[in-house]
Amino acid sequence: MSKIILLRHGQSQWNLENRFTGWTDVELSDKGREEAAAAGQAMKRAGLRSGVCFTSYLRRAIHTGQIALAEMGLDWIPMVKDWHLNERHYGALQGLNKAETAREYGEEQVKIWRRSYDVRPPQLKDEDPRFPGHDAKYDLLSLAELPHGESLEDTIGRVRACWEELIVPAAHRNEVVLIAAHGNSLRALAMLMLHLTPEQIVSVEIPTGKPWVFDVDERMNVLSERYI
Amino acid sequence: MSKIILLRHGQSQWNLENRFTGWTDVELSDKGREEAAAAGQAMKRAGLRSGVCFTSYLRRAIHTGQIALAEMGLDWIPMVKDWHLNERHYGALQGLNKAETAREYGEEQVKIWRRSYDVRPPQLKDEDPRFPGHDAKYDLLSLAELPHGESLEDTIGRVRACWEELIVPAAHRNEVVLIAAHGNSLRALAMLMLHLTPEQIVSVEIPTGKPWVFDVDERMNVLSERYI
Repeated sequence: MSKIILLRHGQSQWNLENRFTGWTDVELSDKGREEAAAAGQAMKRAGLRSGVCFTSYLRRAIHTGQIALAEMGLDWIPMVKDWHLNERHYGALQGLNKAETAREYGEEQVKIWRRSYDVRPPQLKDEDPRFPGHDAKYDLLSLAELPHGESLEDTIGRVRACWEELIVPAAHRNEVVLIAAHGNSLRALAMLMLHLTPEQIVSVEIPTGKPWVFDVDERMNVLSERYI
Repeated sequence: MSKIILLRHGQSQWNLENRFTGWTDVELSDKGREEAAAAGQAMKRAGLRSGVCFTSYLRRAIHTGQIALAEMGLDWIPMVKDWHLNERHYGALQGLNKAETAREYGEEQVKIWRRSYDVRPPQLKDEDPRFPGHDAKYDLLSLAELPHGESLEDTIGRVRACWEELIVPAAHRNEVVLIAAHGNSLRALAMLMLHLTPEQIVSVEIPTGKPWVFDVDERMNVLSERYI
Protein backbone atom coordinates (compact mmCIF):
# COMPACT_ATOMS: atom_id res chain seq x y z
CA MET A 1 0.00 0.00 0.00
CA SER A 2 1.21 3.49 -0.88
CA LYS A 3 0.06 7.03 -0.35
CA ILE A 4 -0.38 9.37 -3.31
CA ILE A 5 -0.72 12.99 -2.23
CA LEU A 6 -2.11 15.69 -4.51
CA LEU A 7 -1.04 19.22 -3.59
CA ARG A 8 -2.42 22.20 -5.51
CA HIS A 9 -0.14 25.25 -5.53
CA GLY A 10 -1.32 28.29 -3.67
CA GLN A 11 -1.90 31.85 -4.77
CA SER A 12 0.19 33.14 -7.67
CA GLN A 13 0.70 36.72 -8.81
CA TRP A 14 -1.88 36.25 -11.55
CA ASN A 15 -4.48 34.67 -9.25
CA LEU A 16 -4.17 37.93 -7.34
CA GLU A 17 -4.86 39.84 -10.55
CA ASN A 18 -7.67 37.45 -11.56
CA ARG A 19 -6.11 36.56 -14.92
CA PHE A 20 -6.21 33.30 -16.93
CA THR A 21 -2.80 31.77 -16.26
CA GLY A 22 -2.52 28.31 -17.86
CA TRP A 23 1.06 27.74 -19.03
CA THR A 24 2.17 31.30 -18.22
CA ASP A 25 5.08 30.80 -15.83
CA VAL A 26 4.16 33.22 -13.04
CA GLU A 27 5.59 33.27 -9.51
CA LEU A 28 3.84 32.33 -6.30
CA SER A 29 2.72 35.32 -4.23
CA ASP A 30 3.89 35.62 -0.61
CA LYS A 31 0.55 34.12 0.40
CA GLY A 32 1.16 31.22 -2.03
CA ARG A 33 4.54 30.57 -0.38
CA GLU A 34 2.87 30.54 3.03
CA GLU A 35 0.27 28.07 1.77
CA ALA A 36 3.04 25.75 0.53
CA ALA A 37 4.82 25.91 3.90
CA ALA A 38 1.58 25.20 5.76
CA ALA A 39 0.98 22.18 3.50
CA GLY A 40 4.48 20.91 4.31
CA GLN A 41 3.79 21.34 8.02
CA ALA A 42 0.49 19.43 7.71
CA MET A 43 2.25 16.54 5.93
CA LYS A 44 5.01 16.54 8.52
CA ARG A 45 2.49 16.44 11.39
CA ALA A 46 0.77 13.52 9.60
CA GLY A 47 4.07 11.64 9.76
CA LEU A 48 4.55 11.39 5.98
CA ARG A 49 8.18 10.54 5.18
CA SER A 50 10.49 9.76 2.34
CA GLY A 51 9.37 9.01 -1.22
CA VAL A 52 9.49 11.07 -4.38
CA CYS A 53 7.92 14.32 -5.58
CA PHE A 54 6.51 15.01 -9.04
CA THR A 55 5.82 18.48 -10.33
CA SER A 56 5.25 20.41 -13.55
CA TYR A 57 7.51 22.69 -15.63
CA LEU A 58 5.89 25.75 -14.04
CA ARG A 59 7.59 27.53 -11.17
CA ARG A 60 4.49 28.06 -9.04
CA ALA A 61 4.16 24.26 -8.74
CA ILE A 62 7.93 23.59 -8.53
CA HIS A 63 8.35 26.14 -5.73
CA THR A 64 5.30 24.75 -3.91
CA GLY A 65 6.95 21.31 -3.93
CA GLN A 66 10.33 22.72 -2.88
CA ILE A 67 8.88 24.76 -0.02
CA ALA A 68 6.70 21.88 1.24
CA LEU A 69 9.62 19.40 1.15
CA ALA A 70 11.88 21.88 2.94
CA GLU A 71 9.30 22.15 5.77
CA MET A 72 9.29 18.34 5.97
CA GLY A 73 13.11 18.15 6.05
CA LEU A 74 12.92 16.24 2.76
CA ASP A 75 14.84 18.59 0.45
CA TRP A 76 17.01 15.64 -0.54
CA ILE A 77 14.31 13.38 -2.04
CA PRO A 78 14.07 13.17 -5.84
CA MET A 79 11.90 15.79 -7.52
CA VAL A 80 10.82 14.89 -11.04
CA LYS A 81 9.64 17.74 -13.27
CA ASP A 82 7.31 16.79 -16.13
CA TRP A 83 5.50 19.15 -18.51
CA HIS A 84 2.59 16.65 -18.64
CA LEU A 85 1.63 17.92 -15.16
CA ASN A 86 1.35 21.54 -16.33
CA GLU A 87 -1.90 23.44 -15.83
CA ARG A 88 -4.52 23.25 -18.61
CA HIS A 89 -3.38 25.50 -21.48
CA TYR A 90 -5.93 28.31 -21.78
CA GLY A 91 -5.08 29.24 -25.39
CA ALA A 92 -5.91 32.81 -26.40
CA LEU A 93 -7.46 33.47 -22.98
CA GLN A 94 -4.06 33.29 -21.27
CA GLY A 95 -3.12 36.62 -19.74
CA LEU A 96 -6.63 38.08 -19.98
CA ASN A 97 -8.35 39.40 -16.91
CA LYS A 98 -11.34 37.17 -16.14
CA ALA A 99 -13.75 40.08 -15.73
CA GLU A 100 -12.68 41.61 -19.06
CA THR A 101 -13.05 38.26 -20.78
CA ALA A 102 -16.58 37.97 -19.41
CA ARG A 103 -17.43 41.44 -20.76
CA GLU A 104 -15.97 40.61 -24.19
CA TYR A 105 -17.30 37.07 -24.69
CA GLY A 106 -20.22 37.05 -22.20
CA GLU A 107 -20.44 35.42 -18.80
CA GLU A 108 -22.11 32.34 -20.24
CA GLN A 109 -19.33 31.62 -22.78
CA VAL A 110 -16.61 32.06 -20.16
CA LYS A 111 -18.46 29.68 -17.86
CA ILE A 112 -18.59 27.12 -20.69
CA TRP A 113 -14.83 27.44 -21.29
CA ARG A 114 -14.08 27.13 -17.60
CA ARG A 115 -16.56 24.47 -16.59
CA SER A 116 -17.00 22.22 -19.63
CA TYR A 117 -15.18 18.95 -20.20
CA ASP A 118 -14.47 18.96 -23.92
CA VAL A 119 -14.78 22.57 -25.13
CA ARG A 120 -11.52 24.21 -26.09
CA PRO A 121 -10.81 27.91 -25.47
CA PRO A 122 -10.07 30.20 -28.47
CA GLN A 123 -6.95 28.70 -30.08
CA LEU A 124 -3.56 30.41 -30.25
CA LYS A 125 -1.94 30.96 -33.63
CA ASP A 126 1.56 29.50 -34.09
CA GLU A 127 3.08 32.97 -34.29
CA ASP A 128 1.52 34.10 -31.00
CA PRO A 129 4.29 34.55 -28.42
CA ARG A 130 2.10 32.67 -25.93
CA PHE A 131 2.33 29.50 -28.09
CA PRO A 132 4.68 27.13 -26.16
CA GLY A 133 6.61 26.38 -29.37
CA HIS A 134 8.44 29.66 -28.70
CA ASP A 135 9.63 28.62 -25.23
CA ALA A 136 12.97 26.78 -25.05
CA LYS A 137 11.76 24.63 -22.20
CA TYR A 138 9.35 22.86 -24.53
CA ASP A 139 11.97 22.25 -27.25
CA LEU A 140 11.77 18.48 -26.83
CA LEU A 141 7.98 18.30 -27.37
CA SER A 142 6.64 17.15 -30.73
CA LEU A 143 4.44 19.52 -32.72
CA ALA A 144 1.43 17.34 -31.84
CA GLU A 145 2.21 17.72 -28.15
CA LEU A 146 2.46 21.53 -28.18
CA PRO A 147 -0.98 22.87 -27.21
CA HIS A 148 -2.74 25.84 -28.82
CA GLY A 149 -5.43 25.79 -26.12
CA GLU A 150 -6.78 22.76 -24.27
CA SER A 151 -10.12 21.43 -23.10
CA LEU A 152 -10.08 19.66 -19.74
CA GLU A 153 -10.30 16.43 -21.75
CA ASP A 154 -7.06 17.34 -23.59
CA THR A 155 -5.32 18.00 -20.28
CA ILE A 156 -6.47 14.69 -18.84
CA GLY A 157 -5.21 12.91 -21.97
CA ARG A 158 -1.65 14.11 -21.44
CA VAL A 159 -1.67 13.81 -17.64
CA ARG A 160 -2.58 10.14 -18.17
CA ALA A 161 0.83 9.61 -19.83
CA CYS A 162 2.62 10.82 -16.70
CA TRP A 163 0.30 8.77 -14.47
CA GLU A 164 0.95 5.54 -16.34
CA GLU A 165 4.64 5.97 -17.13
CA LEU A 166 5.95 7.71 -14.02
CA ILE A 167 3.54 7.95 -11.10
CA VAL A 168 2.21 4.38 -10.97
CA PRO A 169 5.74 2.86 -11.16
CA ALA A 170 6.88 5.33 -8.47
CA ALA A 171 3.96 4.32 -6.22
CA HIS A 172 5.13 0.70 -6.56
CA ARG A 173 8.63 1.65 -5.38
CA ASN A 174 7.77 4.27 -2.73
CA GLU A 175 5.53 4.52 0.30
CA VAL A 176 4.71 8.14 -0.42
CA VAL A 177 4.40 9.95 -3.76
CA LEU A 178 3.76 13.69 -3.60
CA ILE A 179 2.46 15.52 -6.67
CA ALA A 180 2.73 19.31 -6.50
CA ALA A 181 0.78 20.65 -9.45
CA HIS A 182 -2.24 22.61 -10.69
CA GLY A 183 -6.02 22.63 -10.38
CA ASN A 184 -6.70 20.89 -13.68
CA SER A 185 -3.74 18.48 -13.84
CA LEU A 186 -4.64 17.33 -10.32
CA ARG A 187 -8.30 16.98 -11.33
CA ALA A 188 -7.05 14.65 -14.06
CA LEU A 189 -5.22 12.50 -11.50
CA ALA A 190 -8.25 12.47 -9.19
CA MET A 191 -10.44 11.39 -12.12
CA LEU A 192 -8.05 8.55 -12.97
CA MET A 193 -7.79 7.35 -9.37
CA LEU A 194 -11.49 7.70 -8.47
CA HIS A 195 -12.86 6.63 -11.89
CA LEU A 196 -14.99 9.75 -12.15
CA THR A 197 -17.19 10.60 -15.12
CA PRO A 198 -16.71 13.85 -17.09
CA GLU A 199 -19.85 15.19 -15.39
CA GLN A 200 -18.40 14.44 -12.00
CA ILE A 201 -14.89 15.80 -12.56
CA VAL A 202 -15.98 19.25 -13.78
CA SER A 203 -17.63 19.87 -10.43
CA VAL A 204 -14.61 18.79 -8.35
CA GLU A 205 -12.86 21.84 -6.85
CA ILE A 206 -9.48 21.06 -5.29
CA PRO A 207 -8.56 23.62 -2.62
CA THR A 208 -5.11 25.24 -2.78
CA GLY A 209 -2.42 24.24 -0.27
CA LYS A 210 -4.43 21.35 1.25
CA PRO A 211 -2.73 17.95 0.78
CA TRP A 212 -5.25 15.39 -0.56
CA VAL A 213 -4.02 11.96 0.55
CA PHE A 214 -5.04 8.78 -1.31
CA ASP A 215 -4.27 5.35 0.13
CA VAL A 216 -3.91 3.02 -2.85
CA ASP A 217 -3.17 -0.69 -3.19
CA GLU A 218 -0.70 -2.10 -5.69
CA ARG A 219 -3.34 -2.05 -8.47
CA MET A 220 -3.96 1.64 -7.72
CA ASN A 221 -7.40 0.97 -6.22
CA VAL A 222 -8.19 3.78 -3.80
CA LEU A 223 -8.80 2.35 -0.32
CA SER A 224 -9.47 5.73 1.28
CA GLU A 225 -8.86 9.43 0.70
CA ARG A 226 -8.93 12.55 2.83
CA TYR A 227 -7.64 16.11 3.04
CA ILE A 228 -5.13 16.77 5.80
CA MET B 1 32.01 20.49 -26.41
CA SER B 2 30.21 21.03 -23.12
CA LYS B 3 30.51 23.31 -20.13
CA ILE B 4 30.81 21.87 -16.64
CA ILE B 5 30.25 24.49 -13.96
CA LEU B 6 31.32 24.03 -10.35
CA LEU B 7 29.42 26.19 -7.86
CA ARG B 8 30.39 26.14 -4.18
CA HIS B 9 27.55 27.01 -1.81
CA GLY B 10 27.80 30.25 0.09
CA GLN B 11 27.76 30.99 3.77
CA SER B 12 25.82 28.63 6.03
CA GLN B 13 24.71 29.14 9.61
CA TRP B 14 27.66 27.09 10.85
CA ASN B 15 30.23 28.92 8.71
CA LEU B 16 28.99 31.97 10.59
CA GLU B 17 29.66 30.18 13.87
CA ASN B 18 33.02 28.83 12.64
CA ARG B 19 32.10 25.17 13.28
CA PHE B 20 33.16 21.99 11.42
CA THR B 21 30.09 21.18 9.32
CA GLY B 22 30.74 18.19 7.08
CA TRP B 23 27.54 16.17 6.67
CA THR B 24 25.61 18.23 9.24
CA ASP B 25 22.60 19.47 7.30
CA VAL B 26 22.62 23.17 8.18
CA GLU B 27 20.79 25.96 6.35
CA LEU B 28 22.27 28.71 4.20
CA SER B 29 22.47 32.06 5.96
CA ASP B 30 20.82 35.09 4.34
CA LYS B 31 24.25 36.01 2.96
CA GLY B 32 24.56 32.48 1.54
CA ARG B 33 21.23 32.92 -0.26
CA GLU B 34 22.43 36.21 -1.70
CA GLU B 35 25.63 34.54 -2.92
CA ALA B 36 23.56 31.85 -4.67
CA ALA B 37 21.38 34.47 -6.37
CA ALA B 38 24.45 36.44 -7.49
CA ALA B 39 25.94 33.24 -8.94
CA GLY B 40 22.71 32.66 -10.86
CA GLN B 41 22.83 36.21 -12.20
CA ALA B 42 26.48 35.76 -13.28
CA MET B 43 25.60 32.57 -15.18
CA LYS B 44 22.59 34.25 -16.76
CA ARG B 45 24.72 37.20 -17.91
CA ALA B 46 27.22 34.71 -19.35
CA GLY B 47 24.38 33.31 -21.49
CA LEU B 48 24.46 29.82 -19.94
CA ARG B 49 21.21 28.00 -20.74
CA SER B 50 19.49 24.68 -20.35
CA GLY B 51 21.18 21.50 -19.18
CA VAL B 52 21.02 19.65 -15.90
CA CYS B 53 22.01 20.39 -12.30
CA PHE B 54 23.65 17.99 -9.86
CA THR B 55 23.75 18.57 -6.15
CA SER B 56 24.31 16.76 -2.84
CA TYR B 57 21.91 15.50 -0.16
CA LEU B 58 22.65 18.59 1.95
CA ARG B 59 20.26 21.53 1.90
CA ARG B 60 22.89 24.27 1.74
CA ALA B 61 23.95 22.89 -1.66
CA ILE B 62 20.43 21.98 -2.82
CA HIS B 63 19.13 25.47 -2.00
CA THR B 64 22.14 27.06 -3.71
CA GLY B 65 21.27 25.16 -6.88
CA GLN B 66 17.56 26.00 -6.59
CA ILE B 67 18.17 29.70 -6.00
CA ALA B 68 20.74 29.97 -8.84
CA LEU B 69 18.45 28.15 -11.30
CA ALA B 70 15.51 30.37 -10.31
CA GLU B 71 17.60 33.46 -11.11
CA MET B 72 18.39 31.94 -14.50
CA GLY B 73 14.70 31.12 -15.20
CA LEU B 74 15.70 27.44 -15.26
CA ASP B 75 13.64 26.10 -12.34
CA TRP B 76 12.28 23.45 -14.69
CA ILE B 77 15.57 21.70 -15.61
CA PRO B 78 16.32 18.35 -13.95
CA MET B 79 18.08 18.54 -10.58
CA VAL B 80 19.75 15.30 -9.54
CA LYS B 81 20.59 14.88 -5.84
CA ASP B 82 23.40 12.46 -5.02
CA TRP B 83 24.97 11.82 -1.59
CA HIS B 84 28.33 11.20 -3.35
CA LEU B 85 28.54 14.99 -3.79
CA ASN B 86 28.21 15.66 -0.03
CA GLU B 87 30.92 17.62 1.76
CA ARG B 88 33.84 15.68 3.26
CA HIS B 89 32.62 13.95 6.45
CA TYR B 90 34.54 15.48 9.36
CA GLY B 91 33.98 12.60 11.80
CA ALA B 92 34.13 13.48 15.49
CA LEU B 93 35.08 17.07 14.63
CA GLN B 94 31.60 17.78 13.22
CA GLY B 95 29.81 20.39 15.28
CA LEU B 96 32.93 21.58 17.09
CA ASN B 97 33.93 25.20 16.98
CA LYS B 98 37.20 25.48 15.06
CA ALA B 99 38.87 27.67 17.70
CA GLU B 100 37.92 25.24 20.49
CA THR B 101 39.20 22.32 18.44
CA ALA B 102 42.51 24.11 17.99
CA ARG B 103 42.78 24.69 21.74
CA GLU B 104 41.97 21.03 22.48
CA TYR B 105 44.07 19.29 19.81
CA GLY B 106 46.57 22.02 18.96
CA GLU B 107 46.74 24.30 15.94
CA GLU B 108 49.17 22.00 14.17
CA GLN B 109 46.95 18.91 14.41
CA VAL B 110 43.88 20.81 13.18
CA LYS B 111 45.90 22.11 10.25
CA ILE B 112 46.90 18.54 9.40
CA TRP B 113 43.28 17.38 9.49
CA ARG B 114 42.16 20.30 7.36
CA ARG B 115 45.01 20.48 4.89
CA SER B 116 46.28 16.91 4.43
CA TYR B 117 45.26 14.57 1.63
CA ASP B 118 45.04 11.20 3.34
CA VAL B 119 44.74 11.84 7.10
CA ARG B 120 41.33 11.06 8.59
CA PRO B 121 39.81 13.12 11.40
CA PRO B 122 38.97 11.39 14.72
CA GLN B 123 36.46 8.67 13.81
CA LEU B 124 32.84 8.59 14.95
CA LYS B 125 31.57 5.56 16.84
CA ASP B 126 28.56 3.76 15.36
CA GLU B 127 26.40 4.84 18.29
CA ASP B 128 27.25 8.53 17.88
CA PRO B 129 24.13 10.40 16.68
CA ARG B 130 26.36 12.15 14.14
CA PHE B 131 27.06 8.81 12.39
CA PRO B 132 25.04 8.94 9.11
CA GLY B 133 23.74 5.42 9.74
CA HIS B 134 21.19 7.08 12.05
CA ASP B 135 19.82 9.38 9.32
CA ALA B 136 16.94 8.01 7.22
CA LYS B 137 18.21 9.79 4.13
CA TYR B 138 21.22 7.46 4.02
CA ASP B 139 19.14 4.28 4.47
CA LEU B 140 20.09 2.98 1.03
CA LEU B 141 23.85 3.22 1.60
CA SER B 142 25.81 0.06 2.38
CA LEU B 143 27.71 -0.14 5.68
CA ALA B 144 30.96 0.28 3.73
CA GLU B 145 29.66 3.50 2.19
CA LEU B 146 28.62 5.13 5.48
CA PRO B 147 31.56 7.30 6.61
CA HIS B 148 32.84 7.60 10.19
CA GLY B 149 35.13 10.48 9.20
CA GLU B 150 36.83 11.00 5.84
CA SER B 151 40.20 12.11 4.55
CA LEU B 152 40.12 14.23 1.39
CA GLU B 153 41.26 11.08 -0.42
CA ASP B 154 38.16 9.23 0.84
CA THR B 155 35.92 12.05 -0.38
CA ILE B 156 37.56 12.03 -3.80
CA GLY B 157 37.09 8.27 -4.00
CA ARG B 158 33.32 8.50 -3.67
CA VAL B 159 32.93 11.68 -5.76
CA ARG B 160 34.64 9.75 -8.55
CA ALA B 161 31.65 7.36 -8.66
CA CYS B 162 29.27 10.27 -9.33
CA TRP B 163 31.67 11.75 -11.90
CA GLU B 164 31.95 8.54 -13.88
CA GLU B 165 28.39 7.28 -13.59
CA LEU B 166 26.36 10.50 -13.74
CA ILE B 167 28.29 13.64 -14.63
CA VAL B 168 30.31 12.43 -17.62
CA PRO B 169 27.23 10.84 -19.30
CA ALA B 170 25.27 14.05 -18.58
CA ALA B 171 28.03 16.15 -20.18
CA HIS B 172 27.68 14.00 -23.29
CA ARG B 173 23.95 14.72 -23.47
CA ASN B 174 23.91 18.38 -22.37
CA GLU B 175 25.63 21.60 -23.33
CA VAL B 176 25.77 22.76 -19.74
CA VAL B 177 26.10 20.74 -16.53
CA LEU B 178 25.92 22.69 -13.26
CA ILE B 179 27.18 21.12 -10.04
CA ALA B 180 26.10 22.92 -6.85
CA ALA B 181 28.10 21.36 -4.04
CA HIS B 182 30.78 21.79 -1.37
CA GLY B 183 34.40 22.86 -1.02
CA ASN B 184 35.83 19.36 -0.87
CA SER B 185 33.49 17.51 -3.25
CA LEU B 186 34.15 20.24 -5.83
CA ARG B 187 37.91 19.96 -5.19
CA ALA B 188 37.51 16.30 -6.06
CA LEU B 189 35.88 17.17 -9.38
CA ALA B 190 38.53 19.80 -10.14
CA MET B 191 41.25 17.22 -9.39
CA LEU B 192 39.63 14.71 -11.76
CA MET B 193 39.19 17.24 -14.55
CA LEU B 194 42.58 18.95 -14.21
CA HIS B 195 44.55 15.78 -13.34
CA LEU B 196 46.00 17.41 -10.23
CA THR B 197 48.32 15.67 -7.79
CA PRO B 198 47.43 15.31 -4.08
CA GLU B 199 49.98 18.05 -3.33
CA GLN B 200 48.30 20.36 -5.80
CA ILE B 201 44.69 19.76 -4.79
CA VAL B 202 45.19 20.47 -1.08
CA SER B 203 46.23 24.00 -1.93
CA VAL B 204 43.25 24.70 -4.24
CA GLU B 205 40.75 27.01 -2.54
CA ILE B 206 37.45 27.30 -4.38
CA PRO B 207 35.67 30.57 -3.56
CA THR B 208 32.00 30.44 -2.52
CA GLY B 209 29.29 31.60 -4.90
CA LYS B 210 31.66 32.07 -7.89
CA PRO B 211 30.78 29.78 -10.84
CA TRP B 212 33.92 27.98 -12.10
CA VAL B 213 33.32 27.17 -15.77
CA PHE B 214 35.20 24.33 -17.51
CA ASP B 215 35.01 23.87 -21.28
CA VAL B 216 35.50 20.16 -21.93
CA ASP B 217 35.62 18.05 -25.07
CA GLU B 218 33.82 14.73 -25.41
CA ARG B 219 36.71 12.90 -23.71
CA MET B 220 36.46 15.33 -20.79
CA ASN B 221 39.74 17.04 -21.66
CA VAL B 222 39.61 20.57 -20.26
CA LEU B 223 40.06 23.07 -23.10
CA SER B 224 39.81 26.12 -20.85
CA GLU B 225 38.53 27.15 -17.43
CA ARG B 226 37.68 30.41 -15.72
CA TYR B 227 35.64 31.92 -12.90
CA ILE B 228 32.73 34.12 -13.95
